[in-house]
Amino acid sequence: MKYDRTFNFSAGPAMMPEPVLEEIRDEMLNYRGSGMCVMEMSHRSKVFDEILQEAEKDLRELMGIPDNYKVLFIQGGGTLQFAMVPMNLMKNGLACYIETGNWSKKAIAEAKKYGEVKIVASSKDKNFTYIPDCSDLDIPDNADYVYICENETIHGVTWFKLPNTKGKVLVSDQSSMFLSRPCNVSDYGLIWGGVQKNVGPAGMSIVIIREDLLRDDLPDFVPTYMNYKTHADAGSVYNTPNCWAIYCCGKVFKYLKSLGGLEAMNEINKEKAAILYDFLDSSKFFHGSVVKKDRSLMNVPFVTPSPEQDAAVVAATKAAGFDNLKGHKSVGGLRASIYNAMPKEGVQALVDFLRKYEAENA
Amino acid sequence: MKYDRTFNFSAGPAMMPEPVLEEIRDEMLNYRGSGMCVMEMSHRSKVFDEILQEAEKDLRELMGIPDNYKVLFIQGGGTLQFAMVPMNLMKNGLACYIETGNWSKKAIAEAKKYGEVKIVASSKDKNFTYIPDCSDLDIPDNADYVYICENETIHGVTWFKLPNTKGKVLVSDQSSMFLSRPCNVSDYGLIWGGVQKNVGPAGMSIVIIREDLLRDDLPDFVPTYMNYKTHADAGSVYNTPNCWAIYCCGKVFKYLKSLGGLEAMNEINKEKAAILYDFLDSSKFFHGSVVKKDRSLMNVPFVTPSPEQDAAVVAATKAAGFDNLKGHKSVGGLRASIYNAMPKEGVQALVDFLRKYEAENA
Repeated sequence: MKYDRTFNFSAGPAMMPEPVLEEIRDEMLNYRGSGMCVMEMSHRSKVFDEILQEAEKDLRELMGIPDNYKVLFIQGGGTLQFAMVPMNLMKNGLACYIETGNWSKKAIAEAKKYGEVKIVASSKDKNFTYIPDCSDLDIPDNADYVYICENETIHGVTWFKLPNTKGKVLVSDQSSMFLSRPCNVSDYGLIWGGVQKNVGPAGMSIVIIREDLLRDDLPDFVPTYMNYKTHADAGSVYNTPNCWAIYCCGKVFKYLKSLGGLEAMNEINKEKAAILYDFLDSSKFFHGSVVKKDRSLMNVPFVTPSPEQDAAVVAATKAAGFDNLKGHKSVGGLRASIYNAMPKEGVQALVDFLRKYEAENA
Repeated sequence: MKYDRTFNFSAGPAMMPEPVLEEIRDEMLNYRGSGMCVMEMSHRSKVFDEILQEAEKDLRELMGIPDNYKVLFIQGGGTLQFAMVPMNLMKNGLACYIETGNWSKKAIAEAKKYGEVKIVASSKDKNFTYIPDCSDLDIPDNADYVYICENETIHGVTWFKLPNTKGKVLVSDQSSMFLSRPCNVSDYGLIWGGVQKNVGPAGMSIVIIREDLLRDDLPDFVPTYMNYKTHADAGSVYNTPNCWAIYCCGKVFKYLKSLGGLEAMNEINKEKAAILYDFLDSSKFFHGSVVKKDRSLMNVPFVTPSPEQDAAVVAATKAAGFDNLKGHKSVGGLRASIYNAMPKEGVQALVDFLRKYEAENA
């Protein structure tokens, strides 16, 4: 990397592609002859509308989003979506949630404000180190939807096979795997992702929702902002959106297309993750926390034999120029987040460092 | 200006100071040796925490915010605040609103979802071209608060003297005048401002709230994100905030301090607005829409003798390199928004152009 940049293993906000940052820098004082920075543009102007439309078009191409799905750019992150999902989709007042780690737990806690939540599967028994078998769940007939967190950022598990929802609407939090691999949008009723992990700057979520799930008849207490239909009807400009995040994400969409799209990203991500997992599997000192079949390609939690040694390794990586490898406070240990924008060289350099550390200290 | 930049009279998002944009550009690939762009930083990292703390400190200095007020950086703009204010402050279920234009009307409509709204004064009778006398309002004893929009972006009126709330909590939407002039924070219970007009990029509101108004006992239906206390207790990082907006706003705070703070900005803004208002008062063709005593220093709506001529002038200004002078669709005419970052030269150039236009066409 140029510019003395750090290999930043943060779980989010996280690394962005260097060529994207260079373009943003070069357009800062005058975006393509507009005489303005994108931060200064009216969200109702022609020049910004083109940025917005192009971002949506590129995202639709990347993910193969069918025409009967709306793409919404909504301010706020997961905490707001945890409430928006049940506010909008709990028609019968009952939803099924699958508990696989901190982020599904948070979604569950918030959904309980708006109706009955049935936890139809959980991996709590083994500290969220696997994805439970969801081929034959007990889903009530009147359930409004089945909710999963498709990649648990903290616990490092991911869904490679979606649950059998018995025909109910599937809702997925894709925040920490958004655009990391292909996904068949038609399998879902609603996909949402905070963009600050795998796409752009914090401050926005992208919601992909099947049109028939948009509703006019929400309870009175639902704020105008929190009705998905508000944003769908207005093409994401009911009010001033996070224009900057839309602009940056749009650039990342184009960059991912230039690399070959999501199939190509999946291959790159599998290769990067294998470098780290192969090392962990061969190490006597470092151990991955998650069962092999459910390992995330994005977030890799691992431990040494003791919390003290965990802390010593974190300090050593920091001193060596690797950043943000401390595990989440709720689980401890270490965690390497290796999203789309983490170069292969970064993962290789980390593994080289850990191997040397083990040889010298273990 | 350098970089062929446009005099952009947009009502928001709007111009930002050129020196601020230059700094942001120069820090894009590596913020002060961190090896990261601010968009890439963990919101829990030391380097970002310093950005956040410094932004709050500078804002407190600029506005003279007393210690018993919390400063919150919250994602979302006015639409979310219109709901958050009543959700958090309507304890008795009754609030008084003063209706002075589109933005107070929107706040009123949303507040009605959460309790009784009493409109205690209105300037609707004259199409919101003045601020009503609010020295002796009929405010019920059990009213939770009195709400104003302190500068109406669309109608171009502003409050130079606050209403007599008879001891009730005053809540003010300062979005389109935030940091344009000194304000005595102790006069308010809550001040909020979307930052995309007079400060930074769209995607965030700043809320300044007296600590005793924070509550643990909100109704169950209030989303976790929409309780001000969630953000106050967590120092604005309960979840990932809009880090980029905090960073940009922080730079603007420092820039305003370097210009002499809000007293100095007020003088500059009065001088800039006078250039435009003096011209309008002297013109036979262009007419300001607002009564003199209540004219906004930020948003200046004006008209020609006909909608057709309004449109012709808008087209002519656009061709001459002035941008976004079309009035809001709800009121028509023209509007020049001349926020903090609009240079005096921009206002002077516009007036020169309008004067010439009048001489040649009127």
